[in-house]
Amino acid sequence: MGVQMIVLFTDFGLAGPYTGQVNAVLHQVAPDVPVIQLFADAPAGQPKPAAYLLAAYAQWFPAGTVLLCVVDPGVGSARRGLIVEAAGRFYVGPDNGLFELALRRAASPRIWEITWRPPVLSASFHGRDLFAPIAGRLAQGEPMSALASRVVPSRHPDWPDDLAQIVYIDHYGNALTGLRGEGLPPTAHLNAGGRRIAPAQTFSAVPNGAAFWYVNSNGLVEIAVNGGRTDRALGSAVGSEITIEA
Amino acid sequence: MGVQMIVLFTDFGLAGPYTGQVNAVLHQVAPDVPVIQLFADAPAGQPKPAAYLLAAYAQWFPAGTVLLCVVDPGVGSARRGLIVEAAGRFYVGPDNGLFELALRRAASPRIWEITWRPPVLSASFHGRDLFAPIAGRLAQGEPMSALASRVVPSRHPDWPDDLAQIVYIDHYGNALTGLRGEGLPPTAHLNAGGRRIAPAQTFSAVPNGAAFWYVNSNGLVEIAVNGGRTDRALGSAVGSEITIEA
Amino acid sequence: MGVQMIVLFTDFGLAGPYTGQVNAVLHQVAPDVPVIQLFADAPAGQPKPAAYLLAAYAQWFPAGTVLLCVVDPGVGSARRGLIVEAAGRFYVGPDNGLFELALRRAASPRIWEITWRPPVLSASFHGRDLFAPIAGRLAQGEPMSALASRVVPSRHPDWPDDLAQIVYIDHYGNALTGLRGEGLPPTAHLNAGGRRIAPAQTFSAVPNGAAFWYVNSNGLVEIAVNGGRTDRALGSAVGSEITIEA
Repeated sequence: MGVQMIVLFTDFGLAGPYTGQVNAVLHQVAPDVPVIQLFADAPAGQPKPAAYLLAAYAQWFPAGTVLLCVVDPGVGSARRGLIVEAAGRFYVGPDNGLFELALRRAASPRIWEITWRPPVLSASFHGRDLFAPIAGRLAQGEPMSALASRVVPSRHPDWPDDLAQIVYIDHYGNALTGLRGEGLPPTAHLNAGGRRIAPAQTFSAVPNGAAFWYVNSNGLVEIAVNGGRTDRALGSAVGSEITIEA
Repeated sequence: MGVQMIVLFTDFGLAGPYTGQVNAVLHQVAPDVPVIQLFADAPAGQPKPAAYLLAAYAQWFPAGTVLLCVVDPGVGSARRGLIVEAAGRFYVGPDNGLFELALRRAASPRIWEITWRPPVLSASFHGRDLFAPIAGRLAQGEPMSALASRVVPSRHPDWPDDLAQIVYIDHYGNALTGLRGEGLPPTAHLNAGGRRIAPAQTFSAVPNGAAFWYVNSNGLVEIAVNGGRTDRALGSAVGSEITIEA
Repeated sequence: MGVQMIVLFTDFGLAGPYTGQVNAVLHQVAPDVPVIQLFADAPAGQPKPAAYLLAAYAQWFPAGTVLLCVVDPGVGSARRGLIVEAAGRFYVGPDNGLFELALRRAASPRIWEITWRPPVLSASFHGRDLFAPIAGRLAQGEPMSALASRVVPSRHPDWPDDLAQIVYIDHYGNALTGLRGEGLPPTAHLNAGGRRIAPAQTFSAVPNGAAFWYVNSNGLVEIAVNGGRTDRALGSAVGSEITIEA
């Protein structure tokens, strides 16, 4: 894949004005760069589960991709704005742990604090006023020195490499965990919502109503219920704990 | 209308990653072809009502349009992937009945089984890994012989020409049926949700709270409630049966 | 900002076919003009609160922007279609009050009735069949004389300059009012949902669970609850009254 892209990873929702205004800024600053709406329903205001989701989905995109990442409960406070380069991809967003796993999984990441400031900066919408202009300028090839300066970010060494929690409920009600499939024995069982859950390859391999786990198309362990919704059947929500029987 | 388009008809939802990843693939494979998001909330996992909805809405698009259609509960099983040419439009998606009505209503449809395979094919997301690359390649004008070979699809002769069921609940709560308006006497009454429903031309022609039916802007019989939601007022959902008093 | 844009302000929703068909028309009529999806969840069928929301958000866009605005409960009745030029921006939509505040806040607005008609005009979807083609033609620079003729619109002198009601609930559950922040003393208290609400600058400035008001990034008075949803905590919905203690 060789086309430059800007990818949106936010908790803004789609129907209201936030994503639209960000898109309007990007069209103005980087009119020829396609914008891919990846997540608009990342865990709202929760950078920790969002960090595991982001790291898993960002790796699907080619080097050079600019990811505009806004899960930002501290907007308006003193938290910094960052640019992160990790595995050839650029991340733009708040310094609140959102990039912890992308940083940890990259060989030689580099981090900058955003020093560029817009003519007008609202207190509540840095996604539109600060992070989107930066993402557009990066995609346009503006030199980093005009935008940011090297910095040591806040790190979260206490966060695990894989998170044994639900980090996202998808459109079908499937529950994505913060566990990478590569670290889990293919025969392991999970415990979630009071059920013991066996692995299966596909929906059609299990009876109707059965819960099962598999490694999803982005490498995360995902729990599904054939013909049903995991969130309802297991009472799962973002933050629900799961345990692994090895 | 002369501009080539790729049209998405799926049950992927918009806010999560599925539609975004499909768009990313299409941008890479067919960067200059506009992508129109038509339905992201087609009947989830239900190819039969989806087939009536698809046939009604596809006909609004010009010849040459490529429709990427994914309502695919059997993903990962042995079901085939198809390319269908019907009335000059191209459909890409699973062989599970989704194209039954488009096929039936076209004069000389042609059908191919997708033989092209991507370098990596996930078990659970053929929309992204198989169908999107095929749709992009078709829109780019790649020869069919490089992608697919002629085949006889699974047909569903027991499915009626018009379906007396609700096939979609729209954003306003209106209930779209699988009945084409052209086959219904303009004075017919419907029975749905325990109510007898008369025809009317527009919302403003009936009292507040009244249910009525009309032929919608894509030719389907639709039930609405002035100032209310049909799904709540009549307890309608996808699959709810209706009857016609001729 | 110098790039021409078409901005969508509707109550169509995103997942179903309405926004997609409008986009398909715009791609055909004005293929090189970016389309920004601003609101797809404007107050459904309620032009009055929508008018305050539109006026606040339109002013963020540069002169020359074409806003396609459809909140149109009277579609199919005799209500007229309008083009409004106000403060250099062009608005296209129904003559039902939706443009009242944009008109009132502009120095020398001009208004035209749409006289152009499409080859086929459905009774229920003027957004697709009439307003989208007009918006595309305006963005393409077609002369106004080919589309519309000057007219005096219906005005609503009884509507206040600022509306002390909730006009929108956003993705986070925050409640936007029809009050502009510039007209409210920065120390004023609001009463809404049985609570007395003090001002604060940002979420991080108030305790968890506390409701507060602030001037949002588009100049409207907005009520939020730190760590919660205002709509649930205060029982707020579009149309809920608020009062101001000066």
